[in-house]
Amino acid sequence: MNRPFNFSAGPATIPLEVLNRAGAEIADWHGTGMGVMEMSHRGASFGEILNGTLATVREVLAVPEDFEILFMQGGGLAENAIVPMNLCGVENPKVDVAVTGSWSQKSLTEAKRYADVQLAFDGKAHQFHTVAPTGDWALRPDATYVHVCSNETIHGVEFQTPPDLKALGITAPLVIDCSSHIASRPVEWDKVGLAFAGAQKNLGPAGVTMVFVRKSLLDQAMGICPSAFQYKLVAANTSMYNTPPTYGIYMVGLVFEWLKAQGGIAAIEAQNIAKTNLLYGAIDRSDFYRNEVDPAFRSRMNVPFLLADETLNERFLAEAKAANLLSLKGHKSVGGMRASIYNAMPLSGVEALVSFMQDFERRL
Amino acid sequence: MNRPFNFSAGPATIPLEVLNRAGAEIADWHGTGMGVMEMSHRGASFGEILNGTLATVREVLAVPEDFEILFMQGGGLAENAIVPMNLCGVENPKVDVAVTGSWSQKSLTEAKRYADVQLAFDGKAHQFHTVAPTGDWALRPDATYVHVCSNETIHGVEFQTPPDLKALGITAPLVIDCSSHIASRPVEWDKVGLAFAGAQKNLGPAGVTMVFVRKSLLDQAMGICPSAFQYKLVAANTSMYNTPPTYGIYMVGLVFEWLKAQGGIAAIEAQNIAKTNLLYGAIDRSDFYRNEVDPAFRSRMNVPFLLADETLNERFLAEAKAANLLSLKGHKSVGGMRASIYNAMPLSGVEALVSFMQDFERRL
Repeated sequence: MNRPFNFSAGPATIPLEVLNRAGAEIADWHGTGMGVMEMSHRGASFGEILNGTLATVREVLAVPEDFEILFMQGGGLAENAIVPMNLCGVENPKVDVAVTGSWSQKSLTEAKRYADVQLAFDGKAHQFHTVAPTGDWALRPDATYVHVCSNETIHGVEFQTPPDLKALGITAPLVIDCSSHIASRPVEWDKVGLAFAGAQKNLGPAGVTMVFVRKSLLDQAMGICPSAFQYKLVAANTSMYNTPPTYGIYMVGLVFEWLKAQGGIAAIEAQNIAKTNLLYGAIDRSDFYRNEVDPAFRSRMNVPFLLADETLNERFLAEAKAANLLSLKGHKSVGGMRASIYNAMPLSGVEALVSFMQDFERRL
Repeated sequence: MNRPFNFSAGPATIPLEVLNRAGAEIADWHGTGMGVMEMSHRGASFGEILNGTLATVREVLAVPEDFEILFMQGGGLAENAIVPMNLCGVENPKVDVAVTGSWSQKSLTEAKRYADVQLAFDGKAHQFHTVAPTGDWALRPDATYVHVCSNETIHGVEFQTPPDLKALGITAPLVIDCSSHIASRPVEWDKVGLAFAGAQKNLGPAGVTMVFVRKSLLDQAMGICPSAFQYKLVAANTSMYNTPPTYGIYMVGLVFEWLKAQGGIAAIEAQNIAKTNLLYGAIDRSDFYRNEVDPAFRSRMNVPFLLADETLNERFLAEAKAANLLSLKGHKSVGGMRASIYNAMPLSGVEALVSFMQDFERRL
């Protein structure tokens, strides 16, 4: 099989071992004679899959016991509404949002349906190339929560460490949309109140959203929050208040087992750093390519880059495709190229990309 | 491989041919070197899958052009909120709900978050064994919509034909939750304003919800309706306003191709009738088993039945399992047994069940 390197921003490449295992047991999970997709979510077999996955996730991500781990649906975009619907059932709800790229902009817009929303930081003024120190943000002392997108998939802007609200005397919980870098580095849970992530970047297939929420935040849902999306109900029913996306959960479980077999988060982070150094290094050493993000906020997962001569974009993409390097086109709002190099992208994929980039530059 | 007959109410049995095809292409769809789960939803390959699936669904279910076909997330339970959030953005929204079992009861409860809800018919007064003629329901002439569950999975109560509101002079659109019998018989679209169905019974894996909505109903969403769940946005973006559950959609596509290969809805309906006649016939001819639903409302998909001697329940289930007949336990709210015999359950499965039931009765 010709297996190209797939730099898609999500859905994204999945380890071949994981896919092959899923394929081998697609119609017969562990001798049951049934595929995972066919199993009652209430049965013993799926219970084993769900509980095993929860245990592996908790272990690999070192999730403290005062967090619930939920499997939900709707992806990051739905969660932009589900978060405020779950947290804004208080008097005069106030949400402070730092806009560091497209995704946090969407979160801000959506939260306005449910709360008084304040733009805490506006990255647009900096072309989304950097983020001001948290101490300079416009944060309200009585905010219901503060929202950041800890890795902006489109703009390639990543917080190397989450904002430390406590250090600023802010007691509001921090909500992080970590869809595109979850499981790529350790999570500093002590700084976080709630984290969510669509699975389709680093965790598995689209259609599963993981939510990590402090138990202390389960009791403030708005009356209009649909039952199916109420964290408290979902938590009390181990993500089975309604029928969960069973097959997606199973795939997430396989991905976390793979992660564990790689050596866990420490090992995968080391590899991600190696991949990032290689790619940004190649970009920075060249006048032909450039990445405009402040090095302190460069994403390890999504690397946007521009060609000095943008008229070469189409040719670059066509030749990359011919070289088995796929989905390198940048998001239309940013232009240029983007290489998404999630956990499942091996170092050899980044080496092949860098080698192609250098060759392309040389040939011109 | 030992393949048991799986009578689970959902997630449920999927045709083996469909699973095997999915397994064969899990890491390489049509020579792309990528599995469907890994593909960008914006790419050409997934576009082909999505558009092909939409075309097949429209053809097989004979969906008129004035209906949008949407792929969403959250299942029937989420849709219980998503429907009113999409339809109740009018002055004084009023929802009339016929409660014919557990699912419509849930729909009624959920709609109260968003509208003035009226119980149009209360099946509880009849132990959910029958449904009064629509003309006897308490329907308001100015209802925003009328909701029914056209097949109650737990109580085994099915409308053989949807309520004809127009014949009663009611202009409100009819909303049907048809999760557990979609694609098992033709849909009388002229009577329907909106239909929704979680996929995990007759269409594929859990995590995909299909919504069929008249274009004329796309413009009445409430301000609190999350963008990700606004029918108008989802429709305008061909179900890709947010990242859709790509793998689930692919599986639904394979199931519809399988349906087409079986001869389409007419052929599958004939087989469903044959299966139903066999099973209800065996139950009715016996004093040992009984089904209490009014024959005019008996479900072709979910057949609950009771043993005259309920102390034998556990033994029945254990022996059935030993005979490779799985997931026959009735829902806890009803007790007894339930055989869910969706499209993918072959006649041979029902024959095996009936044969086991008769043998079990004889041996006692």
